[in-house]
Amino acid sequence: VKRRHYTSDEYVEGILKGDISILSQAVTLVESNLYEHQILAQEVIAKCLPYSGQSVRIGITGVPGAGKSTSIDVFGLHVLKQGHKLAVLAIDPSSERSKGSILGDKTRMEKLSVQNDVFIRPSPSAGSLGGVARKTRETIVLCEAAGFDTIFVETVGVGQSETAVHSMVDFFLLIQLAGTGDELQGIKRGIMEMADGIVINKADGDNIERAKLAQAQFRNALHLFPPTLSGWQPQVLTYSGYYEIGIFEVWKMIDDYIDFVKKNGYFEHKRQEQSKYWMFETINERLKEHFYRNPDIEKMLFDKEQRVLKSEESSFIAAKEVLDYYFSLLSKQK
Amino acid sequence: VKRRHYTSDEYVEGILKGDISILSQAVTLVESNLYEHQILAQEVIAKCLPYSGQSVRIGITGVPGAGKSTSIDVFGLHVLKQGHKLAVLAIDPSSERSKGSILGDKTRMEKLSVQNDVFIRPSPSAGSLGGVARKTRETIVLCEAAGFDTIFVETVGVGQSETAVHSMVDFFLLIQLAGTGDELQGIKRGIMEMADGIVINKADGDNIERAKLAQAQFRNALHLFPPTLSGWQPQVLTYSGYYEIGIFEVWKMIDDYIDFVKKNGYFEHKRQEQSKYWMFETINERLKEHFYRNPDIEKMLFDKEQRVLKSEESSFIAAKEVLDYYFSLLSKQK
Repeated sequence: VKRRHYTSDEYVEGILKGDISILSQAVTLVESNLYEHQILAQEVIAKCLPYSGQSVRIGITGVPGAGKSTSIDVFGLHVLKQGHKLAVLAIDPSSERSKGSILGDKTRMEKLSVQNDVFIRPSPSAGSLGGVARKTRETIVLCEAAGFDTIFVETVGVGQSETAVHSMVDFFLLIQLAGTGDELQGIKRGIMEMADGIVINKADGDNIERAKLAQAQFRNALHLFPPTLSGWQPQVLTYSGYYEIGIFEVWKMIDDYIDFVKKNGYFEHKRQEQSKYWMFETINERLKEHFYRNPDIEKMLFDKEQRVLKSEESSFIAAKEVLDYYFSLLSKQK
Repeated sequence: VKRRHYTSDEYVEGILKGDISILSQAVTLVESNLYEHQILAQEVIAKCLPYSGQSVRIGITGVPGAGKSTSIDVFGLHVLKQGHKLAVLAIDPSSERSKGSILGDKTRMEKLSVQNDVFIRPSPSAGSLGGVARKTRETIVLCEAAGFDTIFVETVGVGQSETAVHSMVDFFLLIQLAGTGDELQGIKRGIMEMADGIVINKADGDNIERAKLAQAQFRNALHLFPPTLSGWQPQVLTYSGYYEIGIFEVWKMIDDYIDFVKKNGYFEHKRQEQSKYWMFETINERLKEHFYRNPDIEKMLFDKEQRVLKSEESSFIAAKEVLDYYFSLLSKQK
């Protein structure tokens, strides 16, 4: 696809007008690893920042099979009906390997994908979790500047990416399945501790009893956790994404939470802590990029790696030599 | 305590003679965050490297309450009786916060702590997991140079530190408890997948039946995992640390494994992969150190953090400005 090359001002103008095509191309820029793209992307983000921050950001996680796509589809539709504009993003550091395990296919969100006022974007695929997460965090800024006032950030529910998502959202929703005690154990304790709400999917037909049982189990489990920093008691609800039962109640919980933390000041406090977190994350990520993207370093690393693998050199010495070389290169720069 | 200041050659000479007091001071040097100490420590490590690598390194993990201390005590005694020299190290990034949750107290290893030919060292307490793990990895080098031919690396069994330990040992032992199915679920799947052997503690008295049941459950669970890279089928054994039952069999399993992987070449292959991993880990860790330990950067970061918290500046801009300043400082260096 041949594209016009916009200036940063043109990107920003398009984004502020809510032009989805330009927003989409700006996100591609954010996701690109090319140096020129990164420079331009950072300019666009900086100019969009004053217009960002006004949305409600919701992290959605759940193990594969919990029905995340169907749920996001109906939750999203509910949000649109209330007159909101919705962006659906994702963090899945494994998506390159597994060729887009989440959100790779918009058609999985049948209802949402044909709506206006919705922007669906798969997970950035390249690089480390830190890099992928930062790109999604930056994409949130662009989406907010484009007028999207509700942001979903989906993640896979099996790894470390939950922590990254948790660090960029206001409300963290955990989707679980009705069923035996196994499901309760299947999710990591750390992920349950992050949840502001747990919702049990497929509470329909023969499954209602089991869903209620799971609800009771999760409520018991949550009581064992220390009180949340927000002062909010995480709730456990049942619903059915497929039959669209209980969607209103799930969303009411989220609205209640946002009201609650906006009143007690935690909403703002958490956002500030997240900003601090992202300052350090961005620094760490860019320190690494600066090093590993240097062509001379790349060459030397390749050689050192071979020597280390053949036991011709120790890992510590090899690391020291590459670092010494890197810092000598930097000191020679004008 | 007032100490002589040794040169790196004096440290190395003492270590190679097996002088525990000098070894201990060298480890303190490795753990220190002072710049001069780090420089000296790296010299000592580099000089010890040719004498390292000859030990068998065993990672030992298990959730709190599984009886790790008692087990290490009797496993260690078994190793000593076979004529080996044993170093017991640990990785616990939380140890500063919780004031030494593992190995903080040598008296927890009653039998081992009064023996000769054993060197027990608590987890380095300062800093990130990466930093703590690197220090332990470097301490292994010193211990091996000092003639310790068996290295235990203990970890807490609840977090990410298992991955770090796995990256520095030849055999990874998971200690579990006999009991209900809950215990099976309590440990993370990722940790189970790393285990070359699972041993179920407290298989004594009334508990034997439950231990056998847990053994069967773990065996079944292991069959669901993909085959290991080593070609070794992880084993599940029962034992009693307190009553010293089944210790010989546990250790025979480890000896069998080492024979097996030395014959099929995996032992050497894994060590090479670990060296490569440590080259990159060391680079990443030291890149961060170089940045965060710079006094000018520290000052600027403190200021930027306040501005970000007060929403006077965005996290991305703040990060960019600190990085720009850092690289400008470096380019001015001679």
